[in-house]
Order: sequence, then structure tokens, then C-alpha cells
Amino acid sequence: MNYEPLYSDTAKRMRSSEIRELLELSQRPDVISFAGGLPNPDSFPIDDVRRILNKVLDEQGSRALQYGPTEGIKEFREVIAEFVSKDGIDASTENVLITSGSQQALDIISKIFLDKGDVIIVGLPTYLGGINSFLAYQASLEGVPVDENGMNVDMLVEKIEELRKKGKRIKMIYTIPTFQNPAGVEMSEERRKRLVEISEEYEIPVLEDDPYGKLRFEGEPLKPIKAFDDNGNTIYMATFSKILSPGIRLAYVVASKELIRKMVIAKQSMDLCTSTLTQLLGYHYIKEGYVDKQLPKIIDMYRKKRDLMLAAMEKYFPRECKWTKPRGGMFIWVECPEEVSTVEMFDEAVKNKVAYIQGRAFYVNGGGQNTMRLNFTNAQDEQIEEGIRRLGEVIRKRVK
Amino acid sequence: MNYEPLYSDTAKRMRSSEIRELLELSQRPDVISFAGGLPNPDSFPIDDVRRILNKVLDEQGSRALQYGPTEGIKEFREVIAEFVSKDGIDASTENVLITSGSQQALDIISKIFLDKGDVIIVGLPTYLGGINSFLAYQASLEGVPVDENGMNVDMLVEKIEELRKKGKRIKMIYTIPTFQNPAGVEMSEERRKRLVEISEEYEIPVLEDDPYGKLRFEGEPLKPIKAFDDNGNTIYMATFSKILSPGIRLAYVVASKELIRKMVIAKQSMDLCTSTLTQLLGYHYIKEGYVDKQLPKIIDMYRKKRDLMLAAMEKYFPRECKWTKPRGGMFIWVECPEEVSTVEMFDEAVKNKVAYIQGRAFYVNGGGQNTMRLNFTNAQDEQIEEGIRRLGEVIRKRVK
Repeated sequence: MNYEPLYSDTAKRMRSSEIRELLELSQRPDVISFAGGLPNPDSFPIDDVRRILNKVLDEQGSRALQYGPTEGIKEFREVIAEFVSKDGIDASTENVLITSGSQQALDIISKIFLDKGDVIIVGLPTYLGGINSFLAYQASLEGVPVDENGMNVDMLVEKIEELRKKGKRIKMIYTIPTFQNPAGVEMSEERRKRLVEISEEYEIPVLEDDPYGKLRFEGEPLKPIKAFDDNGNTIYMATFSKILSPGIRLAYVVASKELIRKMVIAKQSMDLCTSTLTQLLGYHYIKEGYVDKQLPKIIDMYRKKRDLMLAAMEKYFPRECKWTKPRGGMFIWVECPEEVSTVEMFDEAVKNKVAYIQGRAFYVNGGGQNTMRLNFTNAQDEQIEEGIRRLGEVIRKRVK
Repeated sequence: MNYEPLYSDTAKRMRSSEIRELLELSQRPDVISFAGGLPNPDSFPIDDVRRILNKVLDEQGSRALQYGPTEGIKEFREVIAEFVSKDGIDASTENVLITSGSQQALDIISKIFLDKGDVIIVGLPTYLGGINSFLAYQASLEGVPVDENGMNVDMLVEKIEELRKKGKRIKMIYTIPTFQNPAGVEMSEERRKRLVEISEEYEIPVLEDDPYGKLRFEGEPLKPIKAFDDNGNTIYMATFSKILSPGIRLAYVVASKELIRKMVIAKQSMDLCTSTLTQLLGYHYIKEGYVDKQLPKIIDMYRKKRDLMLAAMEKYFPRECKWTKPRGGMFIWVECPEEVSTVEMFDEAVKNKVAYIQGRAFYVNGGGQNTMRLNFTNAQDEQIEEGIRRLGEVIRKRVK
């Protein structure tokens, strides 16, 4: 059968991600890869997971293996409401939706808000999974520059005004305010507060994606945007992928009750419910304090890797390059001189047995040709200096 | 914030399922419920799950807790290809997509095929989760009657011709050929073969949903429709929910390589990947023969429950009612005399402390007012006769 004429409009536009193909190249065993966005497997609390799962199967095996409510099991939603309240977010059980990973949360939110041609405002650069999710609903993506202090809120206002004049329907402002993927930067408290005001003034919801907030190596914690918002304008989402494990597919959304109800209806047709077994794992991981024991270990491991990478970059990268010094998260963002195309340079880097992600993948406006994202969490400590040495060599040749 | 004006066209049409609300009523502890479609928790192989998970965490914990490929981990796809080949389906690894439950498979397939107004042909009656999935993409549902031998294929041809004349775009024929939900019936081999011919003749794919095929209590196994199809026209899907556990959210699709590739791209924006941990559980469950050990236990348990229910129905239901005698699966389908509205009768049944699902929920054409679905797998053996006695009493009062 020739399926082509039967595909939906959406499916006809789907293309396999170029970046995924590059990622596959970077997975050759002899290549030191800073490309993927993977947590380090040594950060996974395997013994804790074993202990919790055995307890869950012993004490409530029948329940763990049965269907659960679409919105998530009650005690887990309760514990998540408590967990986020420690960050200043005012939430009760009814404000929490459990999802099968953050990508599903993005998919549900996209389904609820996006018609073809609707506008989502994103950072320049921004997270690729967000872009993919919004494009799957044929949204139109508009970018606002991100600097050392996060999304530029003055330029955001200009962009909103400009889009409004053109009669565009702006459905959401998407931001990763803390240790942003890909840039590694933090949005300042001042800008967080201003963003809440802008959201209210223009009646545009803010989608706050916070996968890395708990991975802080230094500096005082900043409250999530949602903590400054009294009106339910902010949709907050976070994940267990970076504080426990991505392999269990567990994340959550905190939003107004009305919105959570809408999302639950959407989720019914998408996966019925998230795994009860992994929800009970997540529940005990938080409730019994495993997370408080594990987080410092993850943070120490990642801080050391960041320091190794930054030190190697000082040593091997040409002075003409600039890069972020992230206080947490998983990524360093590099801006090379204009003449260095990280797209053209990629093959040579892989030949030199080192890989990165081309920065343009994170730009919805075609920019970022001279930028790249480096992940510092997944590589072994002893590989980091050597990988950066190789990469520095490749860049150096192209700097005029 | 007033979210209403911001919702997508799809979200504006979403309504909380009436059936779900009725299901909640039926969950009151004093009500004997034949309403839900849940497996019996006593059928879950808790010890096997514990043993496999401990082995997986001991031997490959880091991998089990890490992200995996969107299409599923390789050895699991391989073992699924072998598993379905025992039923006569010709499949290799590249024909298999792992999904986070069957509902996600329906969602992915809907996303790939359905634009607003596209037609899906379904059985009268048919599975509610399928209906919800298709409606979430604003498909138009057209029904073809299902009888003791499954979907009536002659009427299917008439329906296709009628829709073609009207210029409708028919995207798919959706069927649950074996122990159908809700009717419990099996499509005959003759009709299966004819359906493959119709699919080829009209170039309309068949979506074969097979959650219950392994739950056969008696009679010779019938091959899946896909086993009769040499041209990749049939998309086959099945789940671990009924042969292992629904709480682990694990299902699979077997289809042409081209289609699987398209589905993988769609899945990337939906959940990145299915849980590696639960995939490894599913892998060992099949590979090491746990499934072969467990299935006879589940079948014996469910056969006994079916027999108890059928015997009680003979005893307590008015002669004017007709019902199916399923050779497997989880459901009995009841047709009451015309004057008995199972919708109007529902409150009285719940007052009498028994619950069922109103048959009209499974009809896309407004029919089925005098029908109901009874689940026989979830209730305790000793509750079945008493529940049927109560229900018979309520029906009897309404039969003229």
C-alpha cells in the first residue's frame, strides 16, 4: 500500500530530525561526545530504586500493576504539591498532573492550546524538544533573544506588540528560566517578576519548563516564575529525568485547576494513565527523602565535570570564542567568531573524534550558525579535557 | 486568566467523558461493578515482576534507568517480532514499534492519518478508547454492524461505496477482531480474509487492535487479520495490559517499515521514548517464558468467571434478553428488549448496588439504547452471581 496520500497534513510535514542523525554519528564508540543531553548513568540511584520497587511490589503489588487515574495517583500528586511548595509555588493536589515524561507534558499542552498558525514565543536559542512539540501542531514559532540573564523581557514586549499589530494569535511564552537548555543561563529574579506582569498585561500564559532547577552547583536558589504568579497564568512543568532517572518516564505539571482538568481530558485519549509502578517509585523517592540524599551526589558529580570542561576550554579554545559559565544544569553554550560555522565544522570534529550539537538547531529564526551546545554531564571525567582539546584544535583552524 | 479563548479548536470540543463519571459511581465499595474493563489484580504475576526487575537492576541498572530509542530497545522489538510470528504474522525488528500503552498507539496512528473530517470506519459497537482517540483529531466516525462473526463485511463494502459517492476521505477501518470490546465476539476467518481483500481493493488500511487474542478459553485460535495480509495494509497492535499488567504501560505496533518510521518521528514529539525499565521487564517476561507460564493461569481464572456469569445470567435474566457467549476476552454483551433503556435504568441499578456500562457509549450512530457491556474479569467469583441477580431484578421490572 502506498500510504503517502493517506497521511495527515501534520504527518506529511514530518521529517526525521537532522540532529538525531548527527547524534547517531556522535555515538560511535571512539568519539568523545558532548552532543546528547543525557544525565550521567553513574548519577542513577540504582540501589534506592531496587529497594523502593521491592517495597512497592511487596506492599501494594496489585495496585502498582493496575491501571491508575489519568491525572496520576492521589498521594503522588499530593507529594508533588508539597515538593514544589518548598520552592514557593502555591499548589494543592488538584493543581498537579502527572505525565509520562516532560515531552508528554509539552504534547498535552500543545494539543490544548495550538491550532495551525498560532504563535508560541520562545527563546533564541531554546530547547529542541519544545520546538518539535509545537511544530507537531503546526504552530508558528517566534524568537526573543536570551542573554546571560535569560530571555530579554524588553524585547519580548516589542515582539508581542509587533505580532499583535500583525493580528497574530499568541498562545504562549515558552521559557526554561533556570540553567536553560541549551544556553545554561539563569533568568534573573527581576525578569521573572517582569515576565509575570507581561503575561498578565497581555493575557498570554507562560509555560515554565524547569528540568534543571534542582541541579544548582552554586549561588542562591531563584524562585520559579510560578512562585511570583498569583493568577494562575504560569504553567509550571518539571521532571524526574534529571533528579532520579529518565528511563522511568515521569514528570509533572503544576497549573490552575481548570487547566489541569482540561489536560486530564486530553491525556485520556493519549495514554489513559502514567505507569502506576513508576509513580509509586517517584512517590517514595520524594516522600522518604531519597531525593534529598541523592541530589547532593548528582550535584557534586556534575559540578566537577563542569569545572573540568571550563578549565579545558580556557586552556584549548581560541580566545576569540565566548562561552557561558553555568551555575547549574547540564550545558555550556559556545559562541565562536562569525567566520566559524559550527555546521560546516561538524564533519571535521567527528573525524577528530569529538562531537557537539550545532547551535542552529536551537534557533527558530535561522540564526546561531557560529554557536554550539556542549553537554558536560554524560562524558567520563578523564574524557573531558581530551575532547575539549580535540574540539579546540578544530575551531582554531577556522578562526581568522 | 480566562483560558477559554486561548484553547485550540480540539480543546474547545473536549468534554469529560460521561462514561468516566458513571464509572466513578460504580466504584463505590458497596456496588458490585461489571462496568470497568480492568484485568483482575489476582492475575498479575507479582513475584515474576519482582524477580525480573531485580535481575534487570542488578545486571543493567544504568541502562534500565537511561533514555532509550524512540522506537523501543532493540532486543525487545526483536522478541516481539518473534512473538507475533508464532501467530502467523511475518515481522522483523524494523516492523515493530514499542508504545507506552495501546492508547498511545491509537494516538500516534490518529496523529499520522487524521485531518479534521477524515472518516474512520468502526464497528457498531466498538471500543470507547478508539472512539476517543479518533475524535481527538476531529475525525468523522462511521459505523458498520458487528454480529456474532464480527464486523459484517458485506455491509462494510456498502458503507465504503456510499461514503466514496459522497466524496468522503476514508482513512482507516478500525476493528478488534478477537473477543471484541465490547461485544466479546470473534470475527470469522472467512471475514478476516475478505477484510484483507477489501482493504486492498479500496486501498484503505485496516487497524487491527488485538488486546484480548491471547485470552482464549476454548476453540481453535484464529490467526490475526495481519497474518492474511501480504501487502502491509494491516496495522496490528497489541498490549501487555492483559497478559502481564496495565500498570507498566507497554504495548506494540506491527506494521510496514515505512509506517513504523513515520510513527517513530511522531512519537519523538510525544514522549521521546517508552520507559526502558518496563521495556526490559516486558522483554524478559516474553524471552524467558514467563508469559507461557502465566497465561494458562489467567485463562483459567477468567474462564471460571465467565462461566459463573453466564450461569447466573441464565438463572436471573429475563428470557427476553439476549447475550453473547464469548470464547475468550473480558466482556459479555447484552441486548435487552427494545423497551428497556439501559441509560434510564442505570441509576436504579446503582441504587440496587450493581453497575454496568451503557451500551450506547460504544455506538457512534446513537444506537444501542437497549444494550449493555458486562465485564466478568474484575469482580470476585462470589460477587458475580449476586451482582447478576441484582441486575436481573432491575431489568425484569422494565421488560413488558
